[in-house]
This record gives sequence, structure tokens and C-alpha cells, in this order.
Amino acid sequence: MTTVTNPSAVLRAVREIVVEDRPLPQPGAGQVQVAIGAVGICGSDVHYYEHGRIGDFVLNEPMVIGHESAGVITSVGEGVDPTRLGQLVALEPGVPCKSCRQCLAGRYNLCPDVQFFATPPVDGSIAKYVVHDAAFAHPAPAGLTAEQAAMAEPVSVGVWACRKAEVSVGDRVLVTGAGPVGLFAAQAARAFGASSVTVTDLSDFRLDVARELGFDARRADQALATNSFDVLFECSGAAPAFKAGMRSLDRAGRAVVIGMGSDELPLEVFALQGKELTVSGVFRYRNCYPAALELISSGAVQVAPVLTHRFDLPQTEEALTLVRREPNSLKAVVVP
Amino acid sequence: MTTVTNPSAVLRAVREIVVEDRPLPQPGAGQVQVAIGAVGICGSDVHYYEHGRIGDFVLNEPMVIGHESAGVITSVGEGVDPTRLGQLVALEPGVPCKSCRQCLAGRYNLCPDVQFFATPPVDGSIAKYVVHDAAFAHPAPAGLTAEQAAMAEPVSVGVWACRKAEVSVGDRVLVTGAGPVGLFAAQAARAFGASSVTVTDLSDFRLDVARELGFDARRADQALATNSFDVLFECSGAAPAFKAGMRSLDRAGRAVVIGMGSDELPLEVFALQGKELTVSGVFRYRNCYPAALELISSGAVQVAPVLTHRFDLPQTEEALTLVRREPNSLKAVVVP
Amino acid sequence: MTTVTNPSAVLRAVREIVVEDRPLPQPGAGQVQVAIGAVGICGSDVHYYEHGRIGDFVLNEPMVIGHESAGVITSVGEGVDPTRLGQLVALEPGVPCKSCRQCLAGRYNLCPDVQFFATPPVDGSIAKYVVHDAAFAHPAPAGLTAEQAAMAEPVSVGVWACRKAEVSVGDRVLVTGAGPVGLFAAQAARAFGASSVTVTDLSDFRLDVARELGFDARRADQALATNSFDVLFECSGAAPAFKAGMRSLDRAGRAVVIGMGSDELPLEVFALQGKELTVSGVFRYRNCYPAALELISSGAVQVAPVLTHRFDLPQTEEALTLVRREPNSLKAVVVP
Amino acid sequence: MTTVTNPSAVLRAVREIVVEDRPLPQPGAGQVQVAIGAVGICGSDVHYYEHGRIGDFVLNEPMVIGHESAGVITSVGEGVDPTRLGQLVALEPGVPCKSCRQCLAGRYNLCPDVQFFATPPVDGSIAKYVVHDAAFAHPAPAGLTAEQAAMAEPVSVGVWACRKAEVSVGDRVLVTGAGPVGLFAAQAARAFGASSVTVTDLSDFRLDVARELGFDARRADQALATNSFDVLFECSGAAPAFKAGMRSLDRAGRAVVIGMGSDELPLEVFALQGKELTVSGVFRYRNCYPAALELISSGAVQVAPVLTHRFDLPQTEEALTLVRREPNSLKAVVVP
Repeated sequence: MTTVTNPSAVLRAVREIVVEDRPLPQPGAGQVQVAIGAVGICGSDVHYYEHGRIGDFVLNEPMVIGHESAGVITSVGEGVDPTRLGQLVALEPGVPCKSCRQCLAGRYNLCPDVQFFATPPVDGSIAKYVVHDAAFAHPAPAGLTAEQAAMAEPVSVGVWACRKAEVSVGDRVLVTGAGPVGLFAAQAARAFGASSVTVTDLSDFRLDVARELGFDARRADQALATNSFDVLFECSGAAPAFKAGMRSLDRAGRAVVIGMGSDELPLEVFALQGKELTVSGVFRYRNCYPAALELISSGAVQVAPVLTHRFDLPQTEEALTLVRREPNSLKAVVVP
Repeated sequence: MTTVTNPSAVLRAVREIVVEDRPLPQPGAGQVQVAIGAVGICGSDVHYYEHGRIGDFVLNEPMVIGHESAGVITSVGEGVDPTRLGQLVALEPGVPCKSCRQCLAGRYNLCPDVQFFATPPVDGSIAKYVVHDAAFAHPAPAGLTAEQAAMAEPVSVGVWACRKAEVSVGDRVLVTGAGPVGLFAAQAARAFGASSVTVTDLSDFRLDVARELGFDARRADQALATNSFDVLFECSGAAPAFKAGMRSLDRAGRAVVIGMGSDELPLEVFALQGKELTVSGVFRYRNCYPAALELISSGAVQVAPVLTHRFDLPQTEEALTLVRREPNSLKAVVVP
Repeated sequence: MTTVTNPSAVLRAVREIVVEDRPLPQPGAGQVQVAIGAVGICGSDVHYYEHGRIGDFVLNEPMVIGHESAGVITSVGEGVDPTRLGQLVALEPGVPCKSCRQCLAGRYNLCPDVQFFATPPVDGSIAKYVVHDAAFAHPAPAGLTAEQAAMAEPVSVGVWACRKAEVSVGDRVLVTGAGPVGLFAAQAARAFGASSVTVTDLSDFRLDVARELGFDARRADQALATNSFDVLFECSGAAPAFKAGMRSLDRAGRAVVIGMGSDELPLEVFALQGKELTVSGVFRYRNCYPAALELISSGAVQVAPVLTHRFDLPQTEEALTLVRREPNSLKAVVVP
Repeated sequence: MTTVTNPSAVLRAVREIVVEDRPLPQPGAGQVQVAIGAVGICGSDVHYYEHGRIGDFVLNEPMVIGHESAGVITSVGEGVDPTRLGQLVALEPGVPCKSCRQCLAGRYNLCPDVQFFATPPVDGSIAKYVVHDAAFAHPAPAGLTAEQAAMAEPVSVGVWACRKAEVSVGDRVLVTGAGPVGLFAAQAARAFGASSVTVTDLSDFRLDVARELGFDARRADQALATNSFDVLFECSGAAPAFKAGMRSLDRAGRAVVIGMGSDELPLEVFALQGKELTVSGVFRYRNCYPAALELISSGAVQVAPVLTHRFDLPQTEEALTLVRREPNSLKAVVVP
């Protein structure tokens, strides 16, 4: 009789997900073992499933998929506070080297040697158990569910965008693209004190969700007044959205490019210079998990309207194909 | 017998410069009257001369040309310290409204109602006398010539770029384009403490000047190593230079778009996001004249190698056509 | 028969307030005439009433008192949009020169030539009519009362403190002193996204108000845990509060000294250096009125719990003595 | 026959230095073994020698003294690039935990668990060999001597102060106290672009050194004009110097408290608020070694005038008592 110890959703090749039994991982020094409670599905997971690569990262051998995860600490390694056993934690998926120039400067998300869940060849977290760096297993505030805590990942993207753009009281924020990241970024902007938040998309379903969350929701094909926003969060990946957004910014406006899609965006020099705009790119996030968890805990960021579908571990492939099958979906979560 | 009181170089229409006698302007409250000693010729002057317009600014009636100017105060208006009579001043060409949101926030260069020398319909400064806001007539440090003081204008562009990019000790700076603005921006970067400054261009003449000024000068068609610069000053207006420059930036790099030329620049999302780059546009400068004058005075910025040609007022048209005629030229100055 | 045109509350000498009829002021170019609807009483007003001076500012001749004011535009000077007639405006009391180095850098509150309501020898605003610079007469959002709009002054102090300290999501803020400024600063901090706001005072009445506003209210004589706050707003003017607050700050904490009282504060070097704290002083505010009005309008900052007493113009002296007479008071407002 | 393997200068108790033979340390993973070439003596070393403690750090057992060190890599641990063997490195003395909130935010100098050379109970570096974290062993630019490289430590203090105060072109900097740190901070300020640097002290010897380095050197007991500086580096530890320096700052001035001496500094509220000054404390430095080494290498910071005395390892006690014996000294260096 065989005992299944650590069932894991493994991406073997393009469009081929298999649930495998993997060995139970043991925490090393400074690590924790976590029983995974929930893993959100991200666009990058779908991309690996469909294409087997993102840029230079290529799936050359089977890899556990998933990186937006939370769970309960079941074992601690050497040097980790044993009172953390039983703690619900959100797992920040990228563990950096901690010693390079980027890490020491606090820009650990730019560490060239970061190990990130489900970025080849590093295994992801759709599994019964994973081990992780204790410093990147962030305690969830009391009362949070694993599902909510797992959402600290995409919420951190929004928090990081707010910090990049220095969103604060008085800012009029435009979010182009009302997918999960856009909706979380919009909520983060409100929590950072933004005076108004406008969200655009082409999907009526998504615009409805945005509207229910209290935002000024508008169709992306409608014209935007010039000088009407201070901050642009481009979350659609669509070049026309970026161009229109830049034009709508007021003098001294700040744009953050969050969405992926176009390889190149058209940067209009007249607007960039004449209004002295600033455009920043963001790569994941850094030092944002505690704030993201707090915003979820306080209700400033609501995750329920975004978590539209749930699957168990054997259904991981359905979770990965959801977005293509079901237009009225936002984010799927897998519960191992 | 007629007396010529205020000969002025007037752009009547495309490619038509006439020296006209204009009335002697009298300083109003808070203004000074200045006997112009030198006026540099800028690319925008050449553009108005050749095309009669820049963007929305159209030459609809005759306009005195020129805006990089310095001279001696010959009369002061009400409320201006009379001891300033005889003072050599550099004229910051754009006088803002001082009361709008941008002005009160210290971003007076973004004032929608700024009055800027030789931007239609505002007259410029190639004339024997002009009047100007006393606060924008900056005292030149002792020992400066009018010609040197006039260069505070393009040097301010470099100072402003350094401030936008927060150039400091430890930064490796790349300047693409070794025209007058590029050469001044490169020198400003060195004065701000940059560890190294690399300048690229396609002109051997310009690269030689860059080399004489002590910079690492390279042909623009040679490849640049990746992750080799912290700051990019794009001064060429050429899209390929921007693209190559962005690729050469290290993580957390900052690019400032200074040059004008391409209407659109290609913004590669992979570099922008993966390295978390920041791109800023600059529109002229603000609060930079005192620093620019000081850098010229201390010798940290040398203007002599850039001021390659001199003309008197009746030769203004020759000054405007110099760049097209003479490849081995950098900046012309008109001495009224 | 005499007609009273512009009754005004004039401070003739220490503890001597007289209502005088002053001429109706006419707006000059760029100015508006305003029928005052409400004027809050500030500690500085009380100080001039009791002592006739603050620092170098000495009451040498009679002066209209009051500076926290709002009212309706009744006449506009040359160059001012005539559609503003009838507009409710909050009057930012300090009008700077707009041309000095501080003004052009956007630091107009530090302008050495600022003209500030009720700072000798400049008349204040407890009068039926005043004239004021149109750019410093900020339109109140729809639905605000004059009383609410007048509170944009002390609320701006809080907004400015938040901007100085860069209060944002994740910050734990300590406000020492629950007077009007402390209560507004605490509310501003919450609107800027602060994770928690703790308010201390010795008055149970004030602590109750703080508690009703939703803050963690604590007696100032109770010990504070070390490393428990990221930001300190010192609003009490008491040296022990500053010292205890600094000790309670966590590493990289920021303190803003808002309150006036002690001439000198004790700055402990061990805490300042070991935790790399930053201490900033604030002088009034700049560019904060629009944000302050917006926070009042949205309800993020509530003024009702702070506006404990109301007086009409002839009762101005009672308004000025209120704080000394009535311990359970916060702010008095005079309604001319 | 005994072989001395690792002679080390051990502080056994107050005023008791003994050269002991210690075991040869072997580099662990990520570490390097370094043959020490030079160690500068710092005021904190002298303080431990004289008092056996600094604040909460108490000498309870014998400890090797010294922390400003450089040397040649003689062995590398696992994971360290073996081509680094033979490399001259400057040893940044504080190695943080790399995983706490401060470390991950890039503020590793504030790590509560930092291990710092010669801070009890951690051994220092006046020894023939030490092992150290490879990431904190910074390669010296070609041509530097060990003595010069060792000075990267106090030069880093100056670099860090410049970064805290954002010293740049246009700033007028006042440095109170012309000891080694003051003289390095002054040179760093010049390298960061400061327009002028004024240094004050009471010692004519030190003022002479400052003058030779090109600074405006003034006696500390002479009055300073108000509004005459933008930045204050307080390096004397003397309360009157801080007070006078704060008064001499212009509006929006920034003060950095570098010197240790007074437990408390008097913070005048009138100046702090009226001029909106900012006061920051610095604790060592972070991410400054590469810039410090570069400034020494380029000659922007000269160490020779500060390195007034040299000792060999058995003379460590003489090095520690130098400052008390010899008023015309600045910094002693021990060459093991």
C-alpha cells in the first residue's frame, strides 16, 4: 500500500498538468514547512501552462505550478521561533540571495539570483506541503482565511505600485484594466488616500465589479479628458491604453506600467516632456506583504469580489484554463 | 535724422530674419531693463526659423528671436533694488504667472501661462535692450562674461536633468548625443558627483570635444554592455539611442528624455519592468539658474569648447543657419 | 445716521478687543472681496490677545484679529474670473511675495515677506468683509458650510505634517496632544493611510473626543513601549511629550514638531542616532488647502467634534478667553 | 617551539591591551579569510579602552579591538568566487542578519542583530587574520594601499551623511568639528557637489589641516551669520556647536548629527519650525563602501592629511592613547 505524502500539481509540458506525489520537504535552517491552504492562479501560471516559457525562463523539466499561496506552519527549521508552529502565513514567493548589491540596498525584488515559486526551474506551491524561508512567510493578521492571505501576493503588486507612484491624499488615479491586479491596485490606491480612482476596461462584467467596489468605472474605448489624472496604473498590457492614459495625465503625473502584453509601448515625447511625466516599471514588489495583509485584514482591500472561482488540487488544470473558458471570471484559487 | 534705439532680430516669416528698430522698453514694477550682451542660438530658434512653428506654437506675426541671453541692468522698475544697476545678469527666459497650482507648488516651468522668450507670440531677446522680471534676471558671479552667463540657459537644462535623475556619487552616467545640451549635461553630471560619464554621438568632431572635456566618448553605433549605467540622459532625439540606452541601464536605472526629435520613443516593457527603470521627461528647468551660473563660474562646466562661433546682431540669420552649413560647429552666439 | 459698513474685531492692546467699523475694502488686481462667514480662533490669536506678541512679531498698533476664515466672494478684482462671484471660499491666510527664492522653489510658507492675517502689522479676518489674493481663496467643495471651510486652516497643518513625515499605509502614528491641531493631524494621518493612530493627552475630555473619533486614546503620563511607532506628531508643546515620543519611535522613525510651548526641546542623541530618527519642524503649511477641503468634504476629517463653541462678532473677546475659562472646550468659531 | 599563528590585540579590561595568539580562523560558507594590512583607530576604540563600555555594550570578556580595516584575501569559503584570492578588500565591519525587516528594507545598519567588529562581545580586526562575510569585504580599486582602503570606514560615515542630507550642487555646507570624521565628511560633501564647505574647530592644528584641504576653516568660537548654510554636519559632539549650527542654517536646512559627546542636544523650536529645518541622526552607514573607496581612489577624498600616525601591532596601546597624548594628531593606524 502506498501512502501519498505530498500531492503536487506538476506542469510536465505545455498544457500537461499532472498531480504527482512528491517527497515531504523538510525545513532547513531559517526555513518553515507549510501546509498549503490556498493558491491563487496568476496570469503567469496560465502563460507557462500555455506556452512553457516567459521570456528567458523556459520549462525544461517538470515543475510544480503556482505562487500566490498561504498556509499553516507545520514544522520549523533551526533558528526559527518554534512558537510560529500553527501560524497562518502568506508566502512571499521570491526569496532573494540577501547578499548582492540589490539585496543590501533593499531592492531584493531585483536580485539576479532570486528563487521564485514556479519560475523555472524553481518549483511552485500548488502542493500539500512546501518549505520556505521563514522571513518570507508573513504572519497573517487574526481572522484571515488562507484564501484571503494568499491574495497578499497580487495585493502587494498594487501596494508596490502605490509606493512607486507615491499615491497620496489629493491624487486622482486612473487604472487601465480591471483584472485582478487592476482591481487590487485600485483598492490599494484608495487606501493610500487617493482622492478619486477611475477604472477602465472593455469587459462589462469587470466594470460592474469595479463599480460595486465603489470606483468610477468607464469603458476603455471612451475618451479621457486631458490633465484629469495625477497617476496612471497601466494594468491592461494594451498599448492604446497606455497611450491614452499618458495623454490623460496632468502635469507632473506619474505612470506605473504593471500590465504585461505589448513588448513595446509607444512613449509620446510631447506629453512626456511638456508635462514632465514620469514612467516607472514594476517587477513584482518588495517589502509590501505586511501592508498588503493589513489592508486585506482591515477590509480596505476586499478580495471576495475578485475570487470568483474555487478548485481543489486535482482540478488545477481547470483552474488554469478558467480564464479562457469563462469570460465572467476574475481569479481562480486552488485549495490543496 | 533717425536714431536707432533698439535694433532687434525679428523673425518675420519662415527663413526671413530682419533687423528692425523697436521702441526702447521701459521696466514696469518688479522688472529690469537689460542691455543684452550675448544670446546663444538654440535648436528651437533654428526650428522656428526653418518651420515657423513648434507643436502648437505657431509664428503668426513677426517675433524677435533668441532666448539664451545675458546682459547688464540699465534701469530698474518700481520695487527693484536700485543697487542692481550695472549688474551682469543671466536672463531665465520663462516668466510664469506665479499664482497657479503649478507655480505655487514650485513647478513654475509647467505653468500653463508662462511667458517664454521667442515662443510665439512672445518676443525673444536678440535685441539691444529687453525688459524682464527682476526675479528671473539672475546675478552672474564676479568674473563671468556675458557670453558665459548666457550659457546658464543650456547649462540649466543639464542641471535640471541631474536633479530629475538624482545624479550623485556612485552613478555611472550615459549621455547619448554630444550636442551643446549633451555636453553641458555631461559636465553637470560630473559636477553632481557622477563616478563616470560616457558620451555617445555619430560625429567625430563632437566626440573629440567630448574627449577633450575628459569624457569616455564612444561612437553611437557601437554596442553598449548591459547593466553598465545607472543614468541615461537621452540628448540626441533619436529613437535607437533611447532604446539602446535603456537596454544598457542597470537595475533601478533612471532615464531622462532631454532631446527632441522622434515624436514617439519605443519603450520596451521587458527592460522597464524587469529592471524597474524610471523614465522622466524634462521641460526646460526650474530653480536651476543659480546653480548653473555657479558651475560655470567655478569651471566645473566649461562653456568655451561649446561656443564655437560668434556673430553680431546683423548676422543673426547666419547664426541660425550655422548648424546646417557647418558640421564642425556646436553653438553660435550673437553679440548685439 | 451712520451706517456700519465693515465691523471688525480689533485687538487694540493686550486684553483689549473692540469692534470697530472699518472701510469696505475693494479688491485690487488678482484679488477677491469676501463676506466672511466663519473664523476659527487659534492659539496664536489667544497669545496675541494675552501677550501682544509672538517672538519678533509685536502688536504696535491696533490690528484686526483672526485668520482661520471662510466666506463668500462678493466682488472680484481685475483678472479674476467673474464666475467666482458667490463662491464659498476658504482663505489661506498667508500670501507670499511669489518671487523670492523660497516662493519659486514652492516653499512659499517660508517666504520672508509673507503677509499673514493677524500677524502684526497685517490685519486679520474677523470682520464682515476682507479682500484677499484670489489664488489663496480656495473654492470649497459643494455642500460645505463656511464653518467647515474655515477649518481648512488647522486641517492643513495636519495635512502638511503628514506630507513632511510621508505618512502612508503601514505607519503607526503617535500624536501627542489632543487639542484641535492634534485631533485634525490624527484624522489626517488616518486619511493618509496610517495603520494605527494613537493619541495622548492629560485631559480626559480631550481623550474622550479622540476616542469618539476612533483613535487609540491614552493618558500622556502612561509609558509608551519602545519601537512602537513610525511617526510622531508632537502637538502638545511639552518637552516631556517630545522626549517620550522620540523614545517610543521605531528605527527610521520620523518626528514632526507641530506644537509650540517649550523654547527648547531635549534631543537625545542615543535615540536620534541609534535609530536614525528624523525630526522636522513645520511652519504653517503650503499647497495643502485643496487636500484639506477635500478631506473635510469626504468626511475623512470631521470638524464637528472639534468645533465646540460658537460666538458672534461682538463676542470675539469671549471666544478668545474661552480656552482659559472652559477646560472642556476645543475650538471656538466666530460667525461675523 | 611554539608558532605564533594569529597575533591579535586584545582588550582584556579597561586600559589593558595584550597581544594574544589566537587560532587561525577558517572561512565558512560565504566568507573570506583576510590577512589584515591596516586598521585605523576610531574614537569608539579609545572609548572602550578607557571606559570598557559604550551605552549598553559592555566589555565582559576579552575582545580583539579595532574595526576600520583592510587586507588581502587569503582563503575563500564555500560559494565565494575563488578568483578573489589575493584581492585587497576593505572590510565593512558590521554584518547584519540579512533577514529582518530592517535588512530587507535596505536599512541593514539598523539591524538589531548586526555583528560589528569590536562591539562586545564581537571580536575586532587588529589581528593578523580575520574571517568576514564576503559581501562585506569590498574590493579596493586598483592602486589603493591597505591603509587607504581601511579609511573607507570613516569616509563611509561622510558619504552616508551626504546621502542623508541629500548634499548636492548649490548647497552651502557647514561642518562643525575638524576631527577625522569631520574632515572626511567635508571632503565627501565637496565630492557630492557642494558649492561651499566651511569647517569649524577650536584646534588651530585641525583648522590648518582643513585649510590645506581647501576648506573655509573658522574658529568654532566665532559667530556664524544666520541663513548662511543649507546643511550642517555636526561632528564635534558639542551642544553649543549644534545650537550655533542650527541657528546658522537657512530656511529648509538639513542637519545631520554625526558626532557623539553630549547625551542631549538643545533643539530650539523657533528655528526648527520657523525655518522648517530637518535634523537626522546617523548610525554608521549602509551601502556606502563602494562609493567611499571610489572617492579615495579618485583623490576626491584625501586620506593622507588625516592619517597622522602609524603603529605596528604590538604598539596598539600607544595607538589607542595617541589622541590624549598628542594634540596635533588626527588618526592613528595600526599595521599588523
